[in-house]
Amino acid sequence: MTSTGEQVFDWIDARADERRRAGLTRQLRPRRADSTLLDLAGNDYLGLSRDKRVSGAAAAAALRWGAGSTGSRLVTGTTELHTELEHSLATFCGAQAALVFSSGFAANLGAITALSGKGSAIVTDAYIHASLIDGCRLSRADIAVMQHGDAAAIKRALETRRTEHALVVTDSVFSVDGDLAPLPQLAAACRDHKAGLLVDDAHGFGVLGEGGRGAVAEAGLIKEPNVITTITLSKSLGAQGGAVLGPRRVIRHLLETARTFIFDTGLAPASAAAALAALNVLREEPDRPSRVRDVAATLAFRLKDAGFRVTVPDAAVISVQAPSPEAALQWAEECRAAGVWVGCFRPPSVPDKISRLRLTARADLTDADVDRAVDVITRCAPTGAS
Amino acid sequence: MTSTGEQVFDWIDARADERRRAGLTRQLRPRRADSTLLDLAGNDYLGLSRDKRVSGAAAAAALRWGAGSTGSRLVTGTTELHTELEHSLATFCGAQAALVFSSGFAANLGAITALSGKGSAIVTDAYIHASLIDGCRLSRADIAVMQHGDAAAIKRALETRRTEHALVVTDSVFSVDGDLAPLPQLAAACRDHKAGLLVDDAHGFGVLGEGGRGAVAEAGLIKEPNVITTITLSKSLGAQGGAVLGPRRVIRHLLETARTFIFDTGLAPASAAAALAALNVLREEPDRPSRVRDVAATLAFRLKDAGFRVTVPDAAVISVQAPSPEAALQWAEECRAAGVWVGCFRPPSVPDKISRLRLTARADLTDADVDRAVDVITRCAPTGAS
Ligand SMILES: Cc1ncc(COP(=O)(O)O)c(C=O)c1O
Ligand SMILES: Cc1ncc(COP(=O)(O)O)c(C=O)c1O
Repeated sequence: MTSTGEQVFDWIDARADERRRAGLTRQLRPRRADSTLLDLAGNDYLGLSRDKRVSGAAAAAALRWGAGSTGSRLVTGTTELHTELEHSLATFCGAQAALVFSSGFAANLGAITALSGKGSAIVTDAYIHASLIDGCRLSRADIAVMQHGDAAAIKRALETRRTEHALVVTDSVFSVDGDLAPLPQLAAACRDHKAGLLVDDAHGFGVLGEGGRGAVAEAGLIKEPNVITTITLSKSLGAQGGAVLGPRRVIRHLLETARTFIFDTGLAPASAAAALAALNVLREEPDRPSRVRDVAATLAFRLKDAGFRVTVPDAAVISVQAPSPEAALQWAEECRAAGVWVGCFRPPSVPDKISRLRLTARADLTDADVDRAVDVITRCAPTGAS
Repeated sequence: MTSTGEQVFDWIDARADERRRAGLTRQLRPRRADSTLLDLAGNDYLGLSRDKRVSGAAAAAALRWGAGSTGSRLVTGTTELHTELEHSLATFCGAQAALVFSSGFAANLGAITALSGKGSAIVTDAYIHASLIDGCRLSRADIAVMQHGDAAAIKRALETRRTEHALVVTDSVFSVDGDLAPLPQLAAACRDHKAGLLVDDAHGFGVLGEGGRGAVAEAGLIKEPNVITTITLSKSLGAQGGAVLGPRRVIRHLLETARTFIFDTGLAPASAAAALAALNVLREEPDRPSRVRDVAATLAFRLKDAGFRVTVPDAAVISVQAPSPEAALQWAEECRAAGVWVGCFRPPSVPDKISRLRLTARADLTDADVDRAVDVITRCAPTGAS
């Protein structure tokens, strides 16, 4: 009998069975361009992805520059659009410099690995985003994970570390529950103990701070010489890509050493142009961020009032606890059938194993949209949710 | 004295000095939209990035769908364009199924980490791409790195492994020298020893195989139940993004477990549409791939004839050895000043510490372009290059 590779991946079927039994099967739900669902699931917080100024800039850039950047950033993949975007992001946020990556995920991997390494320490919050976790794993640093929200524990870990170099890594707004990290305390601990602080402001940029300058700017930390901020261009800016903001020497260091910068094709011109156009809208309409926060607060208050276990939103993200993964999924499905699209987060996408609906506010939601959302979510709730 | 974070990143300046002394400083060179440089540095092998059918599809998609996909693929980030692209890629290559990621880098990280792990073995070629190396590091598998091109060593490593599961990871066409991996031998070793084979066909797809179906299809391996192919949408397809092709159960597994799929915003609609349009051009004009290969062969032959140390290209990539990093950089700069843009690869972007010019062929280069390139590269050559 000749050998074949038939059985090599048999273990995959066993894993799929386990997921099925645990109610953790996942499925793609392709969106239609003319979908009439009320979207409370995406991260287009400012409602800019389909704003004609933004999508029009993307279209014009594709025609002018081509569909791709054609190479890595250090070879042919940097167009004038990329450098303009970097300059514009740094100026807007008040940072010395910025570097654009092909995604927020890549920005996090690149920044963490370039700023730490064997023989250095990383101290993190337990609930950081997967891209930060993977950056820490890749770094080969000694990693200490502290309980969620515990700045004192992070301070103690810095104090008692045995390495010279240390980096604290945190989300600003945590992606599942939408709560804010204790940035002032973390920054003080890092200053006191000569550590770097890397803050992923993916869910804060465009939503928090004056005119949407983000959580790090709001905390007055954006110019600190030991603070690095990462953002994504795919949420508030409605495009794709990521960026790192920080001191000039750090950005220079990333440009020369970050593997996800050097060995990755540059961001598509259309995405760079869209982010740039969105940033201009944000400058011209500085009230969009407060509108998002108001919508989020109203939504959360109304759902809490209806008896659900809802987080108090620090930004645009709200989570509503569900009694089980299966109940969460069915709840989300019924909302969808009733015209309201909500996110459904189950293990392993939640840090504490509690399944949730995840709702996101948008600047362009009307009061009627909020009424309808609350009504549908309440009507579709499973027993045990309130 | 109050503490400040001023000194935290002082070590970065020391590293920068080291790089400067070693001639390894890097610099961004922003491209202009109307640049008249002859481009032998990018990876737009088929010349499709600026083809109006491709850039026009990108522009139309941005206007129709918005500038961003607005969420992760399992929430709002899958549009009908994404599923159409996945179907179209799988059909074109002859694979059972495909999954699109936001970059080729992300596709490699996601596929490797989801298909291996603690207690499994990975065996690789020493010259694999940085994204594959990082995927291996992230996987926590036992990693064995074999000499470049040594299929027998890989076979022995599979034979003598102590783990049940094993995955061989390789580029098809290696990104620096453009040489081809011994895919038939690797596949036989994997079959014999019940291992998976993951082939990164970033530089083979669109260039090799019938009508550009890639190196894995050309080797007759695309339907093998233990073979996984990764590709990028950012080179031959002129767009941005990446994809994994393979057996249906493997693709399903990635969709449900690959971290760079689950925790990353979906590819921008413009990039998905551009890749789809490029794939259609490739179907309609099946001779583009052989034109690229002819241009590469001519270019390499002529440079060899002129006395340089040139690789024999298996696809579109050619490398020309330089006597030192400084000489490589100056050679590239002088070519550029004379109107020809070539890549310059220095450590750590080369696996063997030898600096090189890296040239890429394109389907839309004319014979006159090739003449001019050879002339300029020869005229600008440093002493010691030939
Ligand atoms: C907190 C956080 N960081 C980083 C990312 C990754 O950004 P991107 O999707 O642009 O890769 C995400 C979500 O996608 C996120 O929620
Ligand atoms: C062999 C290889 N694999 C993967 C990648 C990453 O693909 P992408 O640039 O689409 O992220 C590249 C280059 O960029 C490459 O050369």
